[in-house]
Amino acid sequence: MKSYREMTKEELQQEYEAMKQEYRKFQGMSLNLNMARGKPCKEQLDLSLGLMDALNSDADMCSEDGTDCRNYGVLTGIPECKRLIGDMMENDPDNIIIFGNSSLNVMFDMVSRAYSHGIMGNTPWCKLDKVKWLCPVPGYDRHFRITEYFGFEMITVPMTPQGPDMDMVEELVSSDPAVKGIWCVPKYSNPQGYSYSDETVLRFANLKPAAPDFRIFWDNAYGVHHLYPDPAKQDHLIEILGACKAAGHPDLVYKFASTSKITFPGSGIAAMATSENNLTDIKKTLTCQTIGHDKLNQLRHVRFFGDFAGMQRHMQKQADIIRPKFEAVEEIFDKNLSGLDIGTWTKPNGGYFISFDAMDGCAKEIVDKAKKAGVTLTGAGATWPYGKDPHDSNIRIAPTYPPLSDLRTAAELFTICVRLVSAEKLLQEM
Amino acid sequence: MKSYREMTKEELQQEYEAMKQEYRKFQGMSLNLNMARGKPCKEQLDLSLGLMDALNSDADMCSEDGTDCRNYGVLTGIPECKRLIGDMMENDPDNIIIFGNSSLNVMFDMVSRAYSHGIMGNTPWCKLDKVKWLCPVPGYDRHFRITEYFGFEMITVPMTPQGPDMDMVEELVSSDPAVKGIWCVPKYSNPQGYSYSDETVLRFANLKPAAPDFRIFWDNAYGVHHLYPDPAKQDHLIEILGACKAAGHPDLVYKFASTSKITFPGSGIAAMATSENNLTDIKKTLTCQTIGHDKLNQLRHVRFFGDFAGMQRHMQKQADIIRPKFEAVEEIFDKNLSGLDIGTWTKPNGGYFISFDAMDGCAKEIVDKAKKAGVTLTGAGATWPYGKDPHDSNIRIAPTYPPLSDLRTAAELFTICVRLVSAEKLLQEM
Repeated sequence: MKSYREMTKEELQQEYEAMKQEYRKFQGMSLNLNMARGKPCKEQLDLSLGLMDALNSDADMCSEDGTDCRNYGVLTGIPECKRLIGDMMENDPDNIIIFGNSSLNVMFDMVSRAYSHGIMGNTPWCKLDKVKWLCPVPGYDRHFRITEYFGFEMITVPMTPQGPDMDMVEELVSSDPAVKGIWCVPKYSNPQGYSYSDETVLRFANLKPAAPDFRIFWDNAYGVHHLYPDPAKQDHLIEILGACKAAGHPDLVYKFASTSKITFPGSGIAAMATSENNLTDIKKTLTCQTIGHDKLNQLRHVRFFGDFAGMQRHMQKQADIIRPKFEAVEEIFDKNLSGLDIGTWTKPNGGYFISFDAMDGCAKEIVDKAKKAGVTLTGAGATWPYGKDPHDSNIRIAPTYPPLSDLRTAAELFTICVRLVSAEKLLQEM
Repeated sequence: MKSYREMTKEELQQEYEAMKQEYRKFQGMSLNLNMARGKPCKEQLDLSLGLMDALNSDADMCSEDGTDCRNYGVLTGIPECKRLIGDMMENDPDNIIIFGNSSLNVMFDMVSRAYSHGIMGNTPWCKLDKVKWLCPVPGYDRHFRITEYFGFEMITVPMTPQGPDMDMVEELVSSDPAVKGIWCVPKYSNPQGYSYSDETVLRFANLKPAAPDFRIFWDNAYGVHHLYPDPAKQDHLIEILGACKAAGHPDLVYKFASTSKITFPGSGIAAMATSENNLTDIKKTLTCQTIGHDKLNQLRHVRFFGDFAGMQRHMQKQADIIRPKFEAVEEIFDKNLSGLDIGTWTKPNGGYFISFDAMDGCAKEIVDKAKKAGVTLTGAGATWPYGKDPHDSNIRIAPTYPPLSDLRTAAELFTICVRLVSAEKLLQEM
């Protein structure tokens, strides 16, 4: 197709009118579709139905060390669950704490703990005049909301296909003791589906922070969320705890994961992996905060999967369900948008999202237009701190939840909205 | 039996030697019993086994409003669970938030939230020079540990069978704006099993705090935990939210409860009930902290109990199991200690504990002696802030966990330890 930039005013006007007509057709369809959040679809959830039978009233409710999982106790998780999640996270079970159902909650609590009590004897962040936080953009809105809630100054760092701009990260982290943390989704990033390169991970591990209580918040939410069975189409990520240890900075990172997008988002298991020093520090709080998390749900997950190989087989079934959805979106974007020079999009090998970059100043209008025709997208700007995308260009596409046919319709409409809004904008500028 | 105080030195010496001999017998039994924590016993847990079948893979996983409980969403709990817990807490479902598995965690988070962000627009407590907290004593060690963790100055208030000394509470709360909260276990209190009188509850509801952000932390952990089926032997507690509203102070109280000692301590449901203003305030944090709690466990509890009447029937079965244990302890204490003037103990109608007051300066030694003969009790001092009982007299007895025969042995040993230590102490003073 011909680039919009090369079109004459007349050609562009023609295109604009054609798209207006197309758009009206969709408006007449009374659509009500949602591509806003990274939610698993019903078929994905059904894959985990066996979880509901993994512990019935006849089951042995004891963990392998004899603990009755129904009763009080066991602050950091039952051993077999630490092992399973350890395998999933590529960490030693001894470095793991199993929490409740939400890794977001674990991250919030970690920030809150540092805010009220400080990290490993350092000044509590609430006593500091300023705390700064690095936010690779576009990124995950709920991360940014935590650091906004605590009043930190969020400094945006551009993402590249290899990860955050590490020159900038190194410069900021090593020069400013007010910089206390960075949000990372290192594998199949939200929203791009990028995975940090080996060089990026090693540069993270070798950071020399000005602040002794600087920590990398490494949210490996999509660690086992490959879309393709072919290993050549699976991203690889260097394990960060090991890399930090090898670099002589064992305490530099808090690593998070959960089974929210493996079993059930509302009823999964969240975990943190970190160094012994950090664990000791965290347990001082944890022992005041709770007597223990839901051990039956831990046991239920272990009984359901058996082991990590079982979880991997399960993830392949998930991939079989959502891969066609990613491919459908890519196919429709390719068909309707390629060559037009009005947008770029990512083609991830895993994760939950596709990131779309429209022409500057168009994202909000595209999302509005889609909404008015019955398709809800993630709000434009959501991928930036404070919900403010300075370019007004990034839109997160979440293909997993709608049924495939709905998704096709939504993707078609989306491309029409992109073309309509882009043509209109270029016409105005002529 | 003759009071130790009336014994001659010779009589007391004789008693001391007799107890030493009795004690040695127990030492020879290689006991390994635990009366330390308020844990349900296996038979109690078995009553909830049906919970494990309440949601199997054939079950409808949707809440009554159509929400798929397996997926993300629903910040404050599914409606039918709010209704069930609302009935349990005697509160409108609209005033309830359902959380995860631990009410202790909910209380910790509430304090943490006030510490980092303040209550309803008031100065965050972390920005204040001093926060003071009222602690009725003896009380619950894990409450005190939260306020210790946040560095609050804990002011002890003596408990009476009608509740905390309200003259003192009123005086401190109304005169000092640094006083921000009070821990209350208003029904079948930990450790005495006292229930606050109508007058006490109404005086709480009518408090006129100097601090606008003073809150009553009303931990109604044992609200439905009666030991006796006879209503005449069931304590009654005025509902505090209603009382506060009627008194014109609707925002004065945060009320907590859980099913930890109704179904499974590790896998129950915790909840808070409070005013609309407080809920709005709390939800501002909660929406940053998590996407939602475990809705399947909420649904599981609703399906298991059906309704509150079902829960009450369930609690009667629990009572049938633990009532004989309370009665056995009381019988043995009566038999071995009454008239000796060396200790007093409570005879609660519900809850999980009996509170024992030894002669001043004897509690630690009694607990040590019991430990050396194989019976673990709650550490002496645990019922006081910082674990320091200034009288060294209070010991919390937790009769629920050991089997009845073990409990009898442990209670017998306990009384021997009390007599041994008391006789020794009185002899030293002669």
